[in-house]
Amino acid sequence: MSSLQVLLVAGTHGNEINAPWLFDQWDQNPGMIDTYNLKICRVIGNPLAYQKRERYVDRDLNRSFSHELLSSLDRNDHEIFRARNLIKEYGPQGFNPSKIVIDFHSTTASMGSSLVVYGRRPVDLALASLVQNRLGLPIYLHECEPSQKGFLVESWPCGFVVEIGPVPQGVLHTQIIDQILLVLGSCLKEISKCKNGSAAFPSQIIVHRHLKNIDFPRDLQGKPIALIHPSLQGKDWYPIKNDYPLFRKLNGENITFSNDSMESEVYPVFINEAAYVEKNIAMAITAKQVLSFQEDWKNDLFNLFSQ
Amino acid sequence: MSSLQVLLVAGTHGNEINAPWLFDQWDQNPGMIDTYNLKICRVIGNPLAYQKRERYVDRDLNRSFSHELLSSLDRNDHEIFRARNLIKEYGPQGFNPSKIVIDFHSTTASMGSSLVVYGRRPVDLALASLVQNRLGLPIYLHECEPSQKGFLVESWPCGFVVEIGPVPQGVLHTQIIDQILLVLGSCLKEISKCKNGSAAFPSQIIVHRHLKNIDFPRDLQGKPIALIHPSLQGKDWYPIKNDYPLFRKLNGENITFSNDSMESEVYPVFINEAAYVEKNIAMAITAKQVLSFQEDWKNDLFNLFSQ
Repeated sequence: MSSLQVLLVAGTHGNEINAPWLFDQWDQNPGMIDTYNLKICRVIGNPLAYQKRERYVDRDLNRSFSHELLSSLDRNDHEIFRARNLIKEYGPQGFNPSKIVIDFHSTTASMGSSLVVYGRRPVDLALASLVQNRLGLPIYLHECEPSQKGFLVESWPCGFVVEIGPVPQGVLHTQIIDQILLVLGSCLKEISKCKNGSAAFPSQIIVHRHLKNIDFPRDLQGKPIALIHPSLQGKDWYPIKNDYPLFRKLNGENITFSNDSMESEVYPVFINEAAYVEKNIAMAITAKQVLSFQEDWKNDLFNLFSQ
Repeated sequence: MSSLQVLLVAGTHGNEINAPWLFDQWDQNPGMIDTYNLKICRVIGNPLAYQKRERYVDRDLNRSFSHELLSSLDRNDHEIFRARNLIKEYGPQGFNPSKIVIDFHSTTASMGSSLVVYGRRPVDLALASLVQNRLGLPIYLHECEPSQKGFLVESWPCGFVVEIGPVPQGVLHTQIIDQILLVLGSCLKEISKCKNGSAAFPSQIIVHRHLKNIDFPRDLQGKPIALIHPSLQGKDWYPIKNDYPLFRKLNGENITFSNDSMESEVYPVFINEAAYVEKNIAMAITAKQVLSFQEDWKNDLFNLFSQ
């Protein structure tokens, strides 16, 4: 098979500082991580935001890769400019082309280590299934959410986000670093096994499929009038049913979950992610789903490697 | 005794959003907190920073109350201007004068609920002893640290900081709100008891006296080369001895505590506070000390009430 470059991105959000710190340490000790002879390229997604320790300068870089924004040449936002440059430099047709991208994020929610896959590209599902099979981590399948689009990894033929938490923005945390190392190592190992033909694909992949976002209850001025219920805080990936308390007002009144889905149980994630308050998201609601592994997925992934 | 106004400050740091949220709810439901007939004034310390959800605009407001900065009329930093205005408006000789100030902060460190007292003003120690006696919370006595000065509460005759954590910056958290309510209620109750002469002072006050700050080990570019050791993370207020591991490098090497104090055990606090990275503080080291209650403290506090 042909050589293919894997692009590793950290600091797409400038206040998620653990992966950038790890990359910096890696620069200084190039042998410290086993890359299984893969061609690797590392980049800080938003260096200016990282320098400022802010999520972004003008707008969320990880919502700036939509075709509409990338092609709107009258937009001068820092992040749209940066998105175009990242594609020009590292995109599949870039100067330094990569076919696979892994984008490392952190969250204030108690997500543990997880993958976020956007849509149902067979190559993403195939690769994610291998990592899940190795580590047992949950996969958040983000799809059908018109208000959230333009994610970085969608501009590469294959890739996903690694999302790890909880960790406050701006805090370096040994446990988060250890988790990044574990997931990164597993991703690289599985990619290398795909490359040399020894990958053992599972018969299924378990995904938590995005159903909808739930916002904080707000007053007419847009201010939250109730907070995440104590029994829900920190309970990402735990199942809830209809009537489960989601929010609590100061007077003790609970606001409960009204299950309008076809599922008897759903799974909240990104509960109380700091960066999502401005996006009107208090949590995302997902449905757990087992997808049978499709031979096509594997074939598409092998085709990607052989192109 | 004469009436005295208590100034309550939230959002001195704009990304510590729980106390400002509580104040906002309180504005909308004026009867929701028992103020024991005290005259209360509430203010957002740094409204512009709070609007931006950033710690500060130009500089840390809670390091902007030094005589030197307040009197340097050529300085136009937003926070120095704001500090002068707060004193002009709410200071002891202000338009709307307050004698006691309580400044509500949050931290990413696992501090629980604590008070921070600056120096050893008898009135502060007297009032803090009453709150400690009621709640059993630790008191961080901040003194003798030339690199950190100009704290807000020092511009009022009496006052301290309430510091609560852990909570990420920008996250509203029910438990933090509950803790603020508990400490706030206890402070107001004890002040009211001082006012009506029924306060029962303890025979001692336990303080954690500031000894020094410890920075992350850094490289020549100033970047941290080791992170808080997993066995120390989250262990604020726990005693450590000489040789205790403070930091861990990626290669597993530990950097241990070198105890150059006269104490056999010391107590780290503010471990991994996000906002302190830029101040070169990975943690503060304190010594636990029991101070016998002095009659003078009580007299000074009563004098403050009767002036």
